Amino acid sequence: MKGSIFTLDFKVRDYECDIQGVVNNAVYLNYFEHTRHEFLKSVGFDFAKLTASNLLPMVYKAEITYKVSLKSGDEFVSELSMTSDGEFKVIYYQNLYRKKDHKIIAKAKITKVFVRDSKLYPSAFYIELLNKK
Amino acid sequence: MKGSIFTLDFKVRDYECDIQGVVNNAVYLNYFEHTRHEFLKSVGFDFAKLTASNLLPMVYKAEITYKVSLKSGDEFVSELSMTSDGEFKVIYYQNLYRKKDHKIIAKAKITKVFVRDSKLYPSAFYIELLNKK
Amino acid sequence: MKGSIFTLDFKVRDYECDIQGVVNNAVYLNYFEHTRHEFLKSVGFDFAKLTASNLLPMVYKAEITYKVSLKSGDEFVSELSMTSDGEFKVIYYQNLYRKKDHKIIAKAKITKVFVRDSKLYPSAFYIELLNKK
Amino acid sequence: MKGSIFTLDFKVRDYECDIQGVVNNAVYLNYFEHTRHEFLKSVGFDFAKLTASNLLPMVYKAEITYKVSLKSGDEFVSELSMTSDGEFKVIYYQNLYRKKDHKIIAKAKITKVFVRDSKLYPSAFYIELLNKK
Repeated sequence: MKGSIFTLDFKVRDYECDIQGVVNNAVYLNYFEHTRHEFLKSVGFDFAKLTASNLLPMVYKAEITYKVSLKSGDEFVSELSMTSDGEFKVIYYQNLYRKKDHKIIAKAKITKVFVRDSKLYPSAFYIELLNKK
Repeated sequence: MKGSIFTLDFKVRDYECDIQGVVNNAVYLNYFEHTRHEFLKSVGFDFAKLTASNLLPMVYKAEITYKVSLKSGDEFVSELSMTSDGEFKVIYYQNLYRKKDHKIIAKAKITKVFVRDSKLYPSAFYIELLNKK
Repeated sequence: MKGSIFTLDFKVRDYECDIQGVVNNAVYLNYFEHTRHEFLKSVGFDFAKLTASNLLPMVYKAEITYKVSLKSGDEFVSELSMTSDGEFKVIYYQNLYRKKDHKIIAKAKITKVFVRDSKLYPSAFYIELLNKK
Repeated sequence: MKGSIFTLDFKVRDYECDIQGVVNNAVYLNYFEHTRHEFLKSVGFDFAKLTASNLLPMVYKAEITYKVSLKSGDEFVSELSMTSDGEFKVIYYQNLYRKKDHKIIAKAKITKVFVRDSKLYPSAFYIELLNKK
């Protein structure tokens, strides 16, 4: 993935699979979120602490394309890149690909904003993460 | 919602809320899915049976916009409309709005396809649901 | 159920079912928790507020017996009774039974304690709920 | 843990935490299940395949004691031992302990049975796993 700045390994857990025997589409958002939070920790940010303060990161938009179904026991890699969009939006591009054949499983574009006291908060402080990295 | 053909009532359950005290963004996909499956049952389709046969409905794309955070105990309504897009795609438009003030909580556009023996299966059989309704 | 003081209706949602096509055993704990929290609200307590204060209700022990598997679309009733055990423990007895034939699905005994500043807090304030009821 | 025959490393994911900021008690059953299924794979069994055949492993009883709360980012180890109880029951003893200080987080006793065509199936075939190990 072009501009990938972080990767995280995953393995499907059986409880994540549904009646169809594949990972339920909602679970992918868990994978994407966990990847972002681990990325943030890797650059010294902590989601739990950020939330304990008054500055709330919120997902504003999530766009996911599902290409191949993940099955019980599948190992896959989650990677991300990040950019800003205007004063308030941060965009994450996130891919999952299967380990054994590098096939793309799913792609996501996640738009985040920051909210303090019910108002949007400029994302510049956050984007500086990119430069630190 | 224009063209709404089905509504379902929900109430937030505490275990759906995360560290921030609001419903985690992945859970919305559960709400949207449950609404679609209940809609299907209401017109005589059964997701579990469909899957037990060889015809697999799959989410191909999910686009969600989050507008207001759902909190512990919030009551909300989930509604949907449905249309086709070409030979294979079925598009669901889904809204959640809060019961007490009719505020839109989230909007989704969910694209589904049908797969039989690893091949796309025309969606015409499915769209006829609309006409039955 | 002897001494039942609260009941709540549920319907299985497909995303709660796993590869076996039945509700995953972990999800039952969600059902039990949601029932307790709705019960608490019904007597004027609020779990989210309790937590926002410094008094944390914690599950200390959970004992669940699974008798019949819940399947896609099953409707069931969740009921509970409550008692104290010593100075600190509150015991919930919780049953799920299927609506159509009143068959017991699962039984649970949930032991809760209250923690304030890392110390156990006497449960008397909580047990008074019973009397109010 | 006496008689431990398998261990698996975990790290708490933020979406597993609830309003209290700790891992929700239902999620522990996910951890316990995933550990058992990984153990089974390690001895050549596959839960998904077992289920695809007609032989259904079912949790009959789950008894969990929660000792310390898991928090965002905590790393912990899940370990298990296994034994039989009579002709039909298999008992798993499962512990979770925190990596940094070896504190016990939770203990579980999980009783499983096997069902084929709605009847209990003797567990001897399964217990032989132990001897293979």
